Amino acid sequence: MGSDEAQRIAERVGVFISETDRVARTLGMTLENIKPGFAKVSMKVRENMLNGFNMCHGGVTFCLADVAFAYACNSHNKKAVALSCNINYSAPAREGDTLIATAEERLSGRIGICDITVTNQHGAIIAVFRGTSYGINEPVRANL
Amino acid sequence: MGSDEAQRIAERVGVFISETDRVARTLGMTLENIKPGFAKVSMKVRENMLNGFNMCHGGVTFCLADVAFAYACNSHNKKAVALSCNINYSAPAREGDTLIATAEERLSGRIGICDITVTNQHGAIIAVFRGTSYGINEPVRANL
Amino acid sequence: MGSDEAQRIAERVGVFISETDRVARTLGMTLENIKPGFAKVSMKVRENMLNGFNMCHGGVTFCLADVAFAYACNSHNKKAVALSCNINYSAPAREGDTLIATAEERLSGRIGICDITVTNQHGAIIAVFRGTSYGINEPVRANL
Amino acid sequence: MGSDEAQRIAERVGVFISETDRVARTLGMTLENIKPGFAKVSMKVRENMLNGFNMCHGGVTFCLADVAFAYACNSHNKKAVALSCNINYSAPAREGDTLIATAEERLSGRIGICDITVTNQHGAIIAVFRGTSYGINEPVRANL
Repeated sequence: MGSDEAQRIAERVGVFISETDRVARTLGMTLENIKPGFAKVSMKVRENMLNGFNMCHGGVTFCLADVAFAYACNSHNKKAVALSCNINYSAPAREGDTLIATAEERLSGRIGICDITVTNQHGAIIAVFRGTSYGINEPVRANL
Repeated sequence: MGSDEAQRIAERVGVFISETDRVARTLGMTLENIKPGFAKVSMKVRENMLNGFNMCHGGVTFCLADVAFAYACNSHNKKAVALSCNINYSAPAREGDTLIATAEERLSGRIGICDITVTNQHGAIIAVFRGTSYGINEPVRANL
Repeated sequence: MGSDEAQRIAERVGVFISETDRVARTLGMTLENIKPGFAKVSMKVRENMLNGFNMCHGGVTFCLADVAFAYACNSHNKKAVALSCNINYSAPAREGDTLIATAEERLSGRIGICDITVTNQHGAIIAVFRGTSYGINEPVRANL
Repeated sequence: MGSDEAQRIAERVGVFISETDRVARTLGMTLENIKPGFAKVSMKVRENMLNGFNMCHGGVTFCLADVAFAYACNSHNKKAVALSCNINYSAPAREGDTLIATAEERLSGRIGICDITVTNQHGAIIAVFRGTSYGINEPVRANL
């Protein structure tokens, strides 16, 4: 498969996930870029994403990174599910911030490993996330 | 401090977080039980919590566990923030399932460790979560 | 398979690993107890296990927990390999301390999850460890 | 502090850890390179590092990554201890392989995050490791 074909497939997976992932849509996430093994997703922190300390909820930051992970690890049109994820928080995000999650596959195959970095609009690192995925022997979509 | 007083404090922290955590409210979570270093939280999986494969989004399962973690690690009215979290997924959850996250502190102090297990209405384990928290030298609420 | 047979198999796996794991032997580990999905291993902290700050090296504490993990997740005579491990350190261990790692399977199957707690001779928690394993479709030993 | 001075300090920390870390010495590790926030360490897999399946013990691979982590996170002569570590194994290492752990700080400060990649002599990734450290307010050595 040529790299043009691989890119075309990644983009179609991107469209499929964008249209069907209810959490990405509810939280207002935007797929900025997708390539084989790579994805960049943005999201604006809104009032309904805050925790009791008025900071962006750690679970919401996780959701953003997790969606970028899903785009990247499914970008080859080989269905993968998350086995485990690890997130480290390094700075708080606040209402009005725009968060950007950049996902890069470190390893693909039966077991995949993907690194996601979440930054804010100033480029400060908000969290780092590492996801381990398990490849299921079927396509994300049959006729992609 | 007697154990009655500790329990009273935990319950007031529970009320405070329940009233102010926007994500817990938006996702329809219910605090079933809170004790010092312990919390149980339930949530019904609704259509808007699904991913592109029509399973409960991993990020939503994480949010449920993370909220239980917040209740438990703040239950002594000593403010704590999450440093890192690790989640392992063991079985999918589906629309209509009721998920229950049970959080138990393993260690408290400057650095806290809390274990959360997420089960469904049949008692099957959906995910296990381990959170590391960092204690800030201030109360969750001044006049609790 | 009856529980007596399961116990007999676990004990034979225990003997096999004790005889063949070079790290367990080099570090002087003792298998205190093994049952299906469970293992307890002890080790005395010696001078050659210290780091530059004269505390027990985090890698050595990890090795102890990892060996307990291997006993527990192989105890059914179904070969399993580690996919990922997470360790949280909560207190330092020192030369002369006796460390005890207790491993309990949380989930078994294709993907297994095992929790290991490392304590010292006073019962203080030194570290908690969570291991994820992947089951290979073959026995630890053919004629166990 | 100029970058020459920072480099000089990193090198002296390197010498100090190399001379005092008993595990690095016992396992025959070599510090190949150290810079502020960066370290590269190599180790040859020997027979006494094998597990019961005759592969390099996961605990030994962890030790190598952990030592690289210690060099990198202490390289500013600000003492740091490990809070938690996460390791994902991607391919087995065998007797005779030369493993190389490359550590790069992602974040420094009170809480530090460091990424370590372990490769073999062919450049294949054996494991990825992420360490979280906690900075203690004292130097690694007073008169460095």
